[in-house]
This record gives sequence, structure tokens and C-alpha cells, in this order.
Amino acid sequence: MSEKVLWSGRFDKAPTDETIEFTSSLSVDIRLAWYDVMGSMAHARMLVKQGIISAEDGDRIHNGLGDILKEIESGTVEIDGKSEDVHSGIEMLLTKRIGDAGARLHTARSRNDQVATDFRMYMRDATLETIESLTGLQEALIAHAERHMDTVLPGFTHVQHAQPVTLGFHLMAYTFKLQRDADRMIDSYKRLNLCPLGAAALAGTTYPIDRHMTSSLLGFSRPTDNAMDAVSDRDFAVEYCFDAALGMCHLSSLAEELVYWSSPEFGFVEISEGYSTGSSIMPQKKNPDVAELVRGRTSRATGSLMSMLTLMKGLPMSYNRDLQEDKEAVFRSIDNYNACLRMMAGMMSEARFDPERMSEALKGGFLNATDLADYLVKKGLPFRLSHEVVGKMVRHCVKNKIGLEEMQVKEMKEFSSLIGPDVMKAISIEECVNRRMSFGGTSPSQVENQVLIGKDSKDAQLSFCMRERERMVKVWNDLAHDM
Amino acid sequence: MSEKVLWSGRFDKAPTDETIEFTSSLSVDIRLAWYDVMGSMAHARMLVKQGIISAEDGDRIHNGLGDILKEIESGTVEIDGKSEDVHSGIEMLLTKRIGDAGARLHTARSRNDQVATDFRMYMRDATLETIESLTGLQEALIAHAERHMDTVLPGFTHVQHAQPVTLGFHLMAYTFKLQRDADRMIDSYKRLNLCPLGAAALAGTTYPIDRHMTSSLLGFSRPTDNAMDAVSDRDFAVEYCFDAALGMCHLSSLAEELVYWSSPEFGFVEISEGYSTGSSIMPQKKNPDVAELVRGRTSRATGSLMSMLTLMKGLPMSYNRDLQEDKEAVFRSIDNYNACLRMMAGMMSEARFDPERMSEALKGGFLNATDLADYLVKKGLPFRLSHEVVGKMVRHCVKNKIGLEEMQVKEMKEFSSLIGPDVMKAISIEECVNRRMSFGGTSPSQVENQVLIGKDSKDAQLSFCMRERERMVKVWNDLAHDM
Amino acid sequence: MSEKVLWSGRFDKAPTDETIEFTSSLSVDIRLAWYDVMGSMAHARMLVKQGIISAEDGDRIHNGLGDILKEIESGTVEIDGKSEDVHSGIEMLLTKRIGDAGARLHTARSRNDQVATDFRMYMRDATLETIESLTGLQEALIAHAERHMDTVLPGFTHVQHAQPVTLGFHLMAYTFKLQRDADRMIDSYKRLNLCPLGAAALAGTTYPIDRHMTSSLLGFSRPTDNAMDAVSDRDFAVEYCFDAALGMCHLSSLAEELVYWSSPEFGFVEISEGYSTGSSIMPQKKNPDVAELVRGRTSRATGSLMSMLTLMKGLPMSYNRDLQEDKEAVFRSIDNYNACLRMMAGMMSEARFDPERMSEALKGGFLNATDLADYLVKKGLPFRLSHEVVGKMVRHCVKNKIGLEEMQVKEMKEFSSLIGPDVMKAISIEECVNRRMSFGGTSPSQVENQVLIGKDSKDAQLSFCMRERERMVKVWNDLAHDM
Amino acid sequence: MSEKVLWSGRFDKAPTDETIEFTSSLSVDIRLAWYDVMGSMAHARMLVKQGIISAEDGDRIHNGLGDILKEIESGTVEIDGKSEDVHSGIEMLLTKRIGDAGARLHTARSRNDQVATDFRMYMRDATLETIESLTGLQEALIAHAERHMDTVLPGFTHVQHAQPVTLGFHLMAYTFKLQRDADRMIDSYKRLNLCPLGAAALAGTTYPIDRHMTSSLLGFSRPTDNAMDAVSDRDFAVEYCFDAALGMCHLSSLAEELVYWSSPEFGFVEISEGYSTGSSIMPQKKNPDVAELVRGRTSRATGSLMSMLTLMKGLPMSYNRDLQEDKEAVFRSIDNYNACLRMMAGMMSEARFDPERMSEALKGGFLNATDLADYLVKKGLPFRLSHEVVGKMVRHCVKNKIGLEEMQVKEMKEFSSLIGPDVMKAISIEECVNRRMSFGGTSPSQVENQVLIGKDSKDAQLSFCMRERERMVKVWNDLAHDM
Repeated sequence: MSEKVLWSGRFDKAPTDETIEFTSSLSVDIRLAWYDVMGSMAHARMLVKQGIISAEDGDRIHNGLGDILKEIESGTVEIDGKSEDVHSGIEMLLTKRIGDAGARLHTARSRNDQVATDFRMYMRDATLETIESLTGLQEALIAHAERHMDTVLPGFTHVQHAQPVTLGFHLMAYTFKLQRDADRMIDSYKRLNLCPLGAAALAGTTYPIDRHMTSSLLGFSRPTDNAMDAVSDRDFAVEYCFDAALGMCHLSSLAEELVYWSSPEFGFVEISEGYSTGSSIMPQKKNPDVAELVRGRTSRATGSLMSMLTLMKGLPMSYNRDLQEDKEAVFRSIDNYNACLRMMAGMMSEARFDPERMSEALKGGFLNATDLADYLVKKGLPFRLSHEVVGKMVRHCVKNKIGLEEMQVKEMKEFSSLIGPDVMKAISIEECVNRRMSFGGTSPSQVENQVLIGKDSKDAQLSFCMRERERMVKVWNDLAHDM
Repeated sequence: MSEKVLWSGRFDKAPTDETIEFTSSLSVDIRLAWYDVMGSMAHARMLVKQGIISAEDGDRIHNGLGDILKEIESGTVEIDGKSEDVHSGIEMLLTKRIGDAGARLHTARSRNDQVATDFRMYMRDATLETIESLTGLQEALIAHAERHMDTVLPGFTHVQHAQPVTLGFHLMAYTFKLQRDADRMIDSYKRLNLCPLGAAALAGTTYPIDRHMTSSLLGFSRPTDNAMDAVSDRDFAVEYCFDAALGMCHLSSLAEELVYWSSPEFGFVEISEGYSTGSSIMPQKKNPDVAELVRGRTSRATGSLMSMLTLMKGLPMSYNRDLQEDKEAVFRSIDNYNACLRMMAGMMSEARFDPERMSEALKGGFLNATDLADYLVKKGLPFRLSHEVVGKMVRHCVKNKIGLEEMQVKEMKEFSSLIGPDVMKAISIEECVNRRMSFGGTSPSQVENQVLIGKDSKDAQLSFCMRERERMVKVWNDLAHDM
Repeated sequence: MSEKVLWSGRFDKAPTDETIEFTSSLSVDIRLAWYDVMGSMAHARMLVKQGIISAEDGDRIHNGLGDILKEIESGTVEIDGKSEDVHSGIEMLLTKRIGDAGARLHTARSRNDQVATDFRMYMRDATLETIESLTGLQEALIAHAERHMDTVLPGFTHVQHAQPVTLGFHLMAYTFKLQRDADRMIDSYKRLNLCPLGAAALAGTTYPIDRHMTSSLLGFSRPTDNAMDAVSDRDFAVEYCFDAALGMCHLSSLAEELVYWSSPEFGFVEISEGYSTGSSIMPQKKNPDVAELVRGRTSRATGSLMSMLTLMKGLPMSYNRDLQEDKEAVFRSIDNYNACLRMMAGMMSEARFDPERMSEALKGGFLNATDLADYLVKKGLPFRLSHEVVGKMVRHCVKNKIGLEEMQVKEMKEFSSLIGPDVMKAISIEECVNRRMSFGGTSPSQVENQVLIGKDSKDAQLSFCMRERERMVKVWNDLAHDM
Repeated sequence: MSEKVLWSGRFDKAPTDETIEFTSSLSVDIRLAWYDVMGSMAHARMLVKQGIISAEDGDRIHNGLGDILKEIESGTVEIDGKSEDVHSGIEMLLTKRIGDAGARLHTARSRNDQVATDFRMYMRDATLETIESLTGLQEALIAHAERHMDTVLPGFTHVQHAQPVTLGFHLMAYTFKLQRDADRMIDSYKRLNLCPLGAAALAGTTYPIDRHMTSSLLGFSRPTDNAMDAVSDRDFAVEYCFDAALGMCHLSSLAEELVYWSSPEFGFVEISEGYSTGSSIMPQKKNPDVAELVRGRTSRATGSLMSMLTLMKGLPMSYNRDLQEDKEAVFRSIDNYNACLRMMAGMMSEARFDPERMSEALKGGFLNATDLADYLVKKGLPFRLSHEVVGKMVRHCVKNKIGLEEMQVKEMKEFSSLIGPDVMKAISIEECVNRRMSFGGTSPSQVENQVLIGKDSKDAQLSFCMRERERMVKVWNDLAHDM
């Protein structure tokens, strides 16, 4: 029988090589190695304290794991490539080095709780990294918003000109979406940060273990409440995939706008050469490839979420090998989301908006039609009727290929006698923007307020991450260095 | 031009009948009617207070809307079936009845913020209903768990016998999953309960409105921060769809187990006739149709979520008509999830577990193999070696078609001299269960603890819902009845 | 026991009302009623011919069903709303009317094969309708392509100006996508058009039935080969959902272009008022709502497909009640796809392209850069080098805000001495288009060829549908009117 | 500027390193290398024949590419890891070696048509491999079916005992599903096997190329009809993903059955040790991991399809960089599907069914209830009434815990006086099976027929693959070795 497996006793024959390759998760879960060692260190320390293994064995395990940890950190660790998974790979390496003591480490635990523990530790760091990456993009957007509080451009609904808005306002809209994305991650973190170690195979263990101790040693908020739930639960992984999929939807919208805004037809933004590429055949091309790829990469996030939901559907209790597929899907989602967030932050930092092209786009259109309707309302006309009147004026202008502000007041009066010379001020684009002072509106004063709110949120997110990061540093130091 | 639209001025021709039918959302969004009236009442009251419309107009609107509200509640309201949507249908009905005052109601708002407001109000109630439905199922599961704290059955991993567990423990595993489902809903509620009213078309408004007033009148925690975000944001709807999709995964697992457990091969549970159906051809059949349908209905939840993510992908700012599709997907998801939760709660309440069949299933297998290995560890053998020894004993038993407990002690000694007569007690199924006393384990004492935790969480969820329900009753009373 | 079910014998109690409502599929599968009657007519005729029921019973059944068929066609049929499904509803209605003979109809069949048969008959018609709808849109596109064989506009890659193309060429690209969509449907039709009737519950039947006879009476190509496969197979439904989902992706692309092309920034197309709507607040708005909704409706198609795949995942043999969910998903997909195709066809027919705006968009850009590079290649420069030279010229032009054709030949020579006065002809937009005469290229002569191919395919599709339609008319006539 | 890109001329600065890493597809599309060289060989030969490049250049290119081809085949090729993609990597390698001639290769093509051509060639081989893998599993199933034509086991609907079936019949049901999976692949192959080369960037080219020649040299059936469609079309990739997703659904069903059938409760099958694994903690475990993983891997297939549909949604014409994401999704789908098919074929070959356990499971149940009902029908009772009578008999038996065949004839008569002594033969399980002789039924004689049909289909699939494989060998030989 192969030495690569932890369960040769019951079997006459070994699995075929193809089976070993097909069932091995090592190439995927190798990135849990560091966390696996940490989990084992905590487990061993608890076994000693509870008198389940001897202090001598505990020391040997701790030192053996300490060496492996350093090798992992320096990239020199050599885990047998034929191991079933990273957990058995590390355990076998340890046992080869320290003998019987290593063979005692797996007392009172199973790979079922071990993998859930490692995975959650990994996801904690991944979640913090994502929140930090979100913050980076929020920062880039807010910086532009501050610079462009009174840069005016057409506001769109249905990709048609609707009302004039400030660029700062437009960019802050994205910031608030990202803020929710971070908020969702922070909420998920609560459910993630629980310790399954000690759930063992599915039913807990007969050894007098102390799960609160291992939970605390590994920086979790507390142990999970039910062992069977603990080994079958992957909610935390599905949640990340969802948070990422919705977050990527927001990035896809921003990317879509960057792609169109950098086209000759719009020309509202110029993406820096550092974030563009050219064509192998058309010498003039400067393509917004990074924005396109981010838009396209939404597909990975949605695909990963769909994978996770397909995976979990209809699985009975408790652990089923199907669950091994989770990491591949989640790791893809994490790598993808973090990379896209970083690329977007970098691209946005270097993007240059073109207030001149935006200003040209305001002309000759009907972005001020609502304001003309409001003007009539203020003169006493019910809104529905004023809407009707202005609709007719627009129809007149379209036929004559002019903008509303290009009509004579006299001409306007033919549509409604309520119109007077003060109309021109009422429908100037600058006025349209400045007067939209309702809370959350597009006027520069309101955008200023939004920038303040946006910065506060961003700072709060960063504080959360920093607190957790500092806490974990202490946790890992305590665990790895003392005994 | 049709009288059914709010924007006839600018158009020469009406849309074709097919276009009207294709673009109308009335058949779907009619269920927002009640909320739409409430939103308009709050808006009107604020317009009066801010001096934007006269008190007389305000009174007329309030009374007109009050009448419509009563008609909605009694199911007698007659909204023109050719309306574009429920919002214009109600506005037109009001205007037909109270004239010009009705035509002033739409001042300083747009359907873009109106629909977002109505939708969020609806989703608030739907979310509470879902949390309450979850609680109902938790209750049914906990009641069985209390009855079956010491009923023993095989615990499965890989659908193979793993270790003996108590039925209470098994059912509590589901309870903790449902608890997370409720927790997620409560988190989403925070992000949902913000008021977009006053965001207008996309940029806020030039009227001196008071968004904090309408937000408060409608029971929201505060107004949204950015108008463009407010009209383009459907995160709250996507979040519900995800919470439902993950929740349905949990139900699909429970359903899968009910289906198999009620087969002749397992026979662990009998589903009551009230939740079963027969066959048109096979007279003996009593099928677990409700469980099967719940499992199958997972597909609606996943489908709706995928619809929402596909919908949002790549949409530019701000409102796009694509967004109209959101309600169809979300309403399906809500109806589906709530119905499945209710059916599961009812079915579980009436389900009868069969401790006798469970007990028979424990025999002649190897559910106590881990305990035998642990026995050897306590005698001094390292875990990895004892695992190997027991593996060989199992192989021996399989060949001889006996269970471990059917071996003679003498026979056992041939596998390891450490085995003594105390082994029989160590591997009795009862002992195996009772000694799994680690926190979260399967022993009756631990299950008792889990039941307490489960009840506390359930009660906390219910309290949350009751507080919100009571708060909303007061909000609606204040809004509809005073002026 | 309720009279609404076909299986009261084995049960003490009836299912609860909630269970009946939850499990009933009548509201969804009522649209199978017509096909259900046809299927029963064929089944009864076969039972008579095989001597399984008497000729008298056969006549009574045929006449009873004939009456029900007429009522279904006239919309007057009254199926008990509490029926489990349309199949039992119709059988009970029949038995109420003709007594014992009706009770003999279900001999040698089960609802498992009955529903599969009805569903396939329905899907046949739905598939033909979809192919016809596709053809309608192909027609509208080809008509424009013929009119605009030499209308030139910028061709885009990465939403950046790439090379000039003809509008006819651009529209024909969509036509070929639609052609594949139809082709896929025709392929699926083969697998769909098989008859499961007689598979009974799952294992065939002991009665001496003639499955080839019923298959032929119902217009199928042949009976399915294995009864267990027949009752568990929903591949045909999943296939439709996929064909629709991919088809909707194509429509979403066309819709995306219509939305952007009708924006003020592009202005390449004007969507007719019949396919546009306005705004409740902004009087100037004419929004491309139909195009937006089609783009958004892609979400229904993808959602339905994901529902079907989630549904089928992990289902064991043979029929499981989960399968009931299939029709809801598939019917939504069918309705959605057909409606979107019809709306697109109508909208495209009335759309007016604006060659003037397209022509303006060609100016001052670098759409002829590739042709300049090719010019240099023809003068002897390797392509990679000429690409480099033209890249530098473009950079020069960008800095000076001019187009390539606005440079002096002398100025050009500074970048490459190979450039001569013949360059101006080489880079004229007209030349660029006309010379792209490679097979499938954008030149008017090539587009002419593509139009011919496109028409041929469209006609072949229509012929396929007409043949099948005619065949079915005969089948139904033979079945319903003779005995 | 970096030497790694093909478009440095127009740019002042290079993309950032992060951009290069983010946008590079080399790690994914490296597996197209062999096809890329073949595509270039065909292109070069055509350029020579059309007089676009000189025969000398053609020779140099052919020989240079020939060397690279050998290096690819021997795994020694060294493509610069910083290349944008495999296409530019190979072109640069060539140019470094043969100078100017290499720089002439990209004349009259673009990476847009090049990647589409390479991808299609790769997909052709992948599709053939999948059909062959399907055939392998069909073979394994048919072999069991032949051995088990008259092995009887309970047939299930709703996971409840329905009617007795033969194991051969049950396994043939899967065979017919796989047959459809292969059929779908063959249909897709038609649409896949078209040549986009010469579509150039999006509009064709001004060079006098011969697309029919390259198409033929590369073994395609003909060139694509419209260049813009050709560079934007990824239907063939989405189709594969769907075919795989539906195929994986079928495998997930088979896997689900293997998992449950190998549990102690069913015990119908024993999976060989070569396809099982054990537990790190429970010494007795022999888990059906391969079956579980296959079931779980359905998630990759569905996820990849969802990725592709998300990717394509709303993309405008023509090539957009988003499309680069396609290969990652499709390659995952291909690797996954082929691996799962191979593992299933191997596992099925070694699986041992247990006719004894199956036979035990037939006892004491009501699998013959339908036959009892049919017996009464033959005695003259209408089916609905006989169904009712037998239902009551089953209820009686359930209460007395006996099977139908354990009732006395006298006792039976109390339920219906039509019952006589011949009933016992009528309801013997053997009779129940043998008499289900309707076409496609479960009787051994029918299964024999199904095996014949199944073999024919399998052979036809293999012939298709072999024909194509042989054709391609000739194509590649002609292309690579002659000039």
C-alpha cells in the first residue's frame, strides 16, 4: 500500500494512480499549508494541556512544525507531491522527521474539522485583503470626486441625456456601492470567524479536549456549536463568492462606462497608456483592455458562485467528498476579485477626465428640460401639465435642431404664457446643477458632503482591517514562538 | 396619444400595443400598490410642510390616496390594466378623482426613486416574513431534537456509516444552518432599510424637499447618501436572492435526507400522509412529494439569483430599463422561499422518526471503529498505528461478515496485545455516543446545550421581527390616519 | 378522501390543503391541455386496436375527448381547479361525463410517460415558433443590409475605431448568429421528436401495447428506446433553455448596440416612437426601452437554464417529483425568447439608420491606419515594421489633433521614405472599404454575397417549419376526426 | 518600450508590469501553441501562392515554424513568459530566428482571426476526445447490462419502490442518455468546423487572400461567411460548455446512485478499492470518493457555462478583450468533463453489483401492486377502480407488516371477488419483469434489443471520431511536411 495515505489498514489494494491524481487536492490546497501548521500547533498545545499527549511529544511536535513553518515561509518546504492533500502531506513530513510523536498529532481530530479550520483561517485573511483592496479603489474614486466636484457632464438614464450632473457626484455613486461591498464582507466575517477544530469526523470526540482553548489560540471568536454542522458547513465560502460576484457586478458597470467613455464618440476619459494595449494589426489602436478584462472577469465571479451553489445542492449530512471542490472555486473567486480591484484602483488613479469634452456634450441637448418643467410648476402649473408643455417644446426643438436654451423667450411663450425672461437663468446648466441641493443631490455642496461620508466609511473599513491584522499578528506570534 | 402614459408631450405617435404590453410591468408590480400609496402619502405630507404644494392640495391628495388604500386593502381597487406600471396607474386614478392636486403629487420626485422606495418597503416586509418562516422550521426541528436527545442512529460521512450519533444532534446541525440564514437576512435588512425617495430621476431635485422627513415617515433608518446610486442600486434585491438561494441549499439537503430516509432501504422516518401523495398507476405508492418538490425548488432560487446577476452585469449609470426585470426575479424568489420554509416546517412537525429502524441500522457495522482505535491510543499506541490495527480488524470482519463487537476478545488480541476485556464496554454504541462530550459533540448532554443555544437564537430572531413589525404598525398608522 | 386525486385507496387521510396547493402543477401545465387530449386519443385508439379495451369504450373515449378538445379550443373547458395536474383534471372530467370507459383510459400508461409525451408535443410547436420568430428578425436585418450595402460607418473593436465597415456588413454579422441559433433549434428538434408514451411508470407495461402506433399517430419520428430513460429524461427541455439562453446573448448584443447607437454621442440610429417610451419627470426623454428590456430579459433565459441544470443535478433514477419544476422554467424561457424575438423584429423594421452621423464619425480618426500600413507593406516593408511606422504617425497626429489624411505627403515621408503621392488614394475611406474584398469581407460586393447566403438559410429554415407544420396539421386531423 | 508587444509604435510608455501580468493570456493559451503554428503554416503557404509574400520568405517561415513545431511536440520550446499571448510569443520567437521573413507572416491577418482559428482547431480535437470518452463509459455500462439482463432489483420512482426492473434495463437507461450527449457533440462539431482565418481584425483584408485554401489546408469544412461575425463569435465554445454541463448532470445522477447503492442500507454495488479511499480517523471507512467527486465536479461544468453566458451578455460588436476570458472557462470544462468520463468508465468497469442484496430488497414490499391492479383490469374492472382496490389491500398489508404475496387468496377475495388462485402467478416478481415486454420495457428480451441499439450507436460514434482523426492526420501531414 502506498505510504501516501492515512488509511491503508482496511484496504487490500491501493487506489489506481488515476484515482490518486483525480482525488488529490494537493495542487489546490497547498496554499493552506501555513494555516495547517498553525492549526496543528494549537491542537498539539491543547492536547498537552489536557493531558492527552505528553509534554515531550508536544515539544517535539511544536519544534517539528516550527521547522516546517519556516520552510513554508521561505518556500523550501517539500511536501510529497503524491499526498492526498496538504493535511496528510504535512503530517507525513512531520512524522518522518519526529517519529511517533508525529503519529500522535492526529489524536482527537479528523481531516474533516482540520480542513474546515484551515479554510476559515485562510478566508479570514482573504476577506481582509479584499476589504483593503476595496478601500484602495474607494480612495482613487474619492480623490477624483474631490477634484471634480463642479465638473459638469450629462447625467444619463437609459444611456440618454437626462439631467446635468457633476463628475464628483457620478463617481461618488460608485463609492457608495463599494462601501456596501465592504460592509457585506465585514458582516460575513462574523460568521466566518468561528472555530470548527475538535468537531472531529462529524460527532465530536471522546477525548477531553478544550475547544475554547484552540479557538482562542487561533484567534477565532468562539468554537462552532454543533460538530455535524461544523464539518458540513461551507456557507462562509459561498458567502464570499456571492460578495465577490455582486462586487464584480459593480466593477463591471464602472468598466463598461470607462470603455464607452474612452471611445471617440464620448471622449470623456483618457485611460493612461500603462493600462491600455494596442493592436497587432491596427497601428492606431489604444484599447481599454484592462477595463474590458475586468468587465469580462465578472464571469469568473458569477461562475464560481454558481459552482458553489451547484455543489451544495442536495448534499446529505455530513461531510461528503464533493466538498473538496469548494476550494478551487473559492480560490479562483478570491484571486480574481482582488486582482480586479487592484487593477481598477491603479487604472482609476491614472485616468484623466476631459472636462472640455463633457462640457461640449452638454450643448444643444435637453438636459435642462426638467428644470424648465419645474420653472412652470413654480409659476403655478401642475407638474403633469408642465411636463406636457415642455414635451411639446422639446419636440419643436428636435424638429428645428436646436436646444431649449436657443429658443427665444417670445417663441417659448407660445407654448405657455407663464414663461418670462427669468426662464433663461432657470435653465442654465450651471443653475440646474447648483440648485440640486436636496440631500444626496448632485450640487457641489452636496457632493462635498458625500465625500466626507465616503471618507469616513473608508477609514472605518481600514480600521477594522488594521485591528484584525494586529490582533492576528499577536495570535500567530503567541502560537508559533512560545510553548 | 394614450392617456395611459405620463409623457405624451414629446411624442408624435404612441408606442404600439405590443410595445405597451411588452414594457408594462403592471402585472408584476401590482403587489407594490399598497406601498406605493404609502410612499405618496409621505411625499405629499412633506411637500406641504416644505411649502411646495398647498395644504389644500395636500389634504385632497391624502384623502384621495386614503380611499385608494382602502380599496387596495379590500381588493376592490381598479387600476387601468393598460398602465405602464403600478405607479402611473395609481397616480392616474388619483388625478381622475381629485384633479389638479393629483397632478401636483409627482413634483420633486421621479418614478426612478419612487419604485426604489416602494420596492424597499415591500422587501422589508418580505424579509421579516422570511425570518419568521425560518423560525418556524427551527422550532419544528428543535422540538424533535428535544424528544430525540438520546435516540441513536448511524452518523454518515460519504453516505457511509461513520460514527453513531444522536438524532437530536443530527437535527440540531440543520438548526444552526437555519440560524445563519436568519442572521444573513438580518444583516441585509440594515442595507435595505434606507430611503431613496427624493433622489428623483438621478440627480436629486431643485425643490427644497426634506428627505429625512419622508425617510422617517416611512420608517426607514435614514435617506440614501447619493441620488445616482439610489436609483441604480438593486443590491438589496440581489442580496435577498442570494440569502434565499443559500437557504434553499440547506433545505435541499434536509429534503434529500427525508427522501432517502423514507425509502424502504433506510426507513428512518415516516412522512405523514398530509405531506405525501400517491401514484396514478402504482397503488402502493406513498411518495415524499413535498420533500422532492422542495429539493427541486432550489432551482428557482438559484435561477432567480443568476437572473439578477446577469441583469446587473455591465449596466452603466444610472437607471436603465433593464432594471424593471428585477421584481419578477425577486418576487419569485420570495414566494418560493417562504412557501418552501412553511411546507418544511409543517412536514417536519408531522414527521415521525423510527428509533427502532435506526437502532437496527447500528448493528453489525463498524460505527465503533474509531472508538476502538481511541481505546488503543489510550493504551499507549500512537493514533496512526492504532488506526492501522483497527483497519485490519475491520477487513477481517468484512470477510467474515461480522461486526467488531461480535469478535472474541481473544481473537482481537491477535491484532494487538494491548486489547483487554474492557474493550467491549469501550466499543458499545451507547458508550460511543455518551462519551462524545466535547463541546458541540453528539452526546445527549451536549445536545441539551445545543438546544438551549438554538432556542435563544430563534427567540432573538423573533424578537427582532416583532420589534420591527410593531414599529411599522405605528409608522403606517401615523402616516395613513393623521394629517 | 378528496376526489381530486387518482390514488386515494392507499391513504387514510388526504393531503393538507397547503400540500395540495404546493404540489399542484395545474396553473402551470394547463397549457398542455390540448396536447394531453391528443395524447389520450392516440392512446385510446391503440388500446382498441390491440384489443385491450373494447371498441365501444374506445368510441366513448374518443367522443368524450373530442368534446373536451373543442372546449379547450374555445376556451370554455372547466377543469377542476383543485386537480393535481392537467392530466388528472382532464381524466376526471372525462370520467364524470362518460363513466367507466373513462376509467379505462389510464390502462397501460402512467402520468410519468403521459407528461413526457405532452411536454414533447408542446415543445415541438414552441420550437417551430421560435425558429419562425428567428426568421422574422433575420428578415428585418437582411432588409436593412440590402439597403445599406455601401453605407459606411466606423467598425469597432474594443469600442474603439478600428477600420471602416459597411452597415450592411455589420448587420449581416448578426444575421449569421441568428442562423446558428435556428440551426441549433433544428438539431434539438431531432432529439425532441421521439415518443415516450407507453414507457408507463418507469418499466414499460405488461399489456400488449403498440408503441410504434401511438408514436406515429402523434407525429413522432419513433418511440424512445428505454422506458426508464424516457420518464427521467428532460434533456429536450434543458436544450431549449440553452438554445434560448445563447440566442438571447445575441439579442443582448444587438440591444446593447441599439441603446448606445441611439444615444446623442453616437446618433447612428433612431428607434421609432412605437418602440420607445418617455419619462415621468424629464419631458425631453425618448428612451430605447424595448432594446433595454430585451437586454435585461437575457437574465430570464440564463436564469431558466440555470434552474434546469440545478434541478437535474444529482437526481437518481427514475421519475422524481422534482421534475415537475421543469415546465415552469421552460415555459418562461419560451415565452420570453419568442416575445423578445418578435419585439426585436418589429423594432428593427422601423429603426432608421443615420448615414450622415455615421459619415461624420469617420472623420478625423485613424480608421485607415491599417491601410496605410498595408500600403507600406506593398512598398516592401515587412508588416511588423510598417505597423511600427504608422503607430508613430498616429502618435504624431494625436498630439496635433489631426487625422492621417490631413497630413501632407511631405510630412509623411519623414516617417518613411517609401511613402509617395499615391498614398492619399490608398487611405481614402471609400477605398478602404471597397478593397476589403476577401471572402466574408466588408466590401459591398462581399456583402451582396452574404445577403444571398443569409436569404437562403432563412428560406431553408422557413421551409423546415412549414413542412413540419403541414405534417402536424394532417396528423391532428387524422387523429381527432377519424376513428 | 517592451519588445514583448506587437504594437509599440503608437505608445509613449509601456503598460505597467501589473497590466502585462493581468492582461497576458499566455499561461492559459499556451496549449494552443501547436495549433497556432499549424495555422501560421497554412497562412504562409497561401500568402506565397497568392503572391503576397515571396517563395523564399515562405520557405523560411515554413522551416522556422517546422522547428518550433518539433520543439512544441518535444516540450522544449521556449516562448518568452512575458508575451501577451501565445500568438505573439510564437511570432516573436520566429522573427528572432529568421528575421524579416517572420515579420511578414502577420500580413493579411490579425490576432482576432488567428485566435478564433486556433481555438476552433483545438476544440475540434477536444470534442473528438470527449465523444471517445463518452463511448468508453457507454461500453462499460453495456458490458454490465449484458451480464445483468435478468438480474432483478427494485425499480424506483421518488426513491420509493415502484416496480421490479432488471439491472440491465436500469444501466441501459444511462447509456441512452450518454448517446444523446455524444449526439449533441457531433451536432456542435458541424458549427465548430468552420475557418475564420482571413477575417483579419474584423472586416476582412485588402490583400488578395484565398480563404478557401487556408480553410482546406487546416481541415475545415469551409470559411466562415462574415468577418465581423467570425471574430466576435464564441458560440462554439459556449456550446461545448453546455454539452458538458448537461452531460455532467447525467454523470451526477449515476454518481448519486453509486454513492447510495454502495451504502450499507442499499448495498447494491461494491466499488472496487481502486476507486475508493479511506478516512484519516475512522479505520473502517471505504468511501466512494470518486463517485462523490464526479457528482461534485458537476459544479465546474455548470460554473463554466454560467461564466461563458455572463461573459457574452451585452457585448457589442466586434472583438472585445472580454473574450480572452473564454479559454480559461472552456479549458476547465473540457479537462473536467474528460477526466470525469474516464474515471466513471474505469470505476464502472470494476464495480461489482450484488444480485443477492438486490433480490432481498424485492421482498416484503409492494413492487407487484401494479401487476395486481392489471390483473383485476384483465378480469374486467376499470383501471381506476382496480387501483383503488389494490390501494386498500396495500394499506391492509402495511398495517399487518406483510407483503401482497403473503396474503391468502381467501383474504384477497374480501377486497375483490374477481381475485382467483391464478393471482399468485400474476404477481410473482419474475412474471412482473418478464411480462413487461412493451417496446423499451424492462423484460430481458427488450433489454437485449436495447443493448443492440446501444452498441450500434456507440460504434457509429466511434466511426465518426476515427474518420475525423484519420482525416486530420492526413491534413497535418500534408501541411507540415510538404511545401
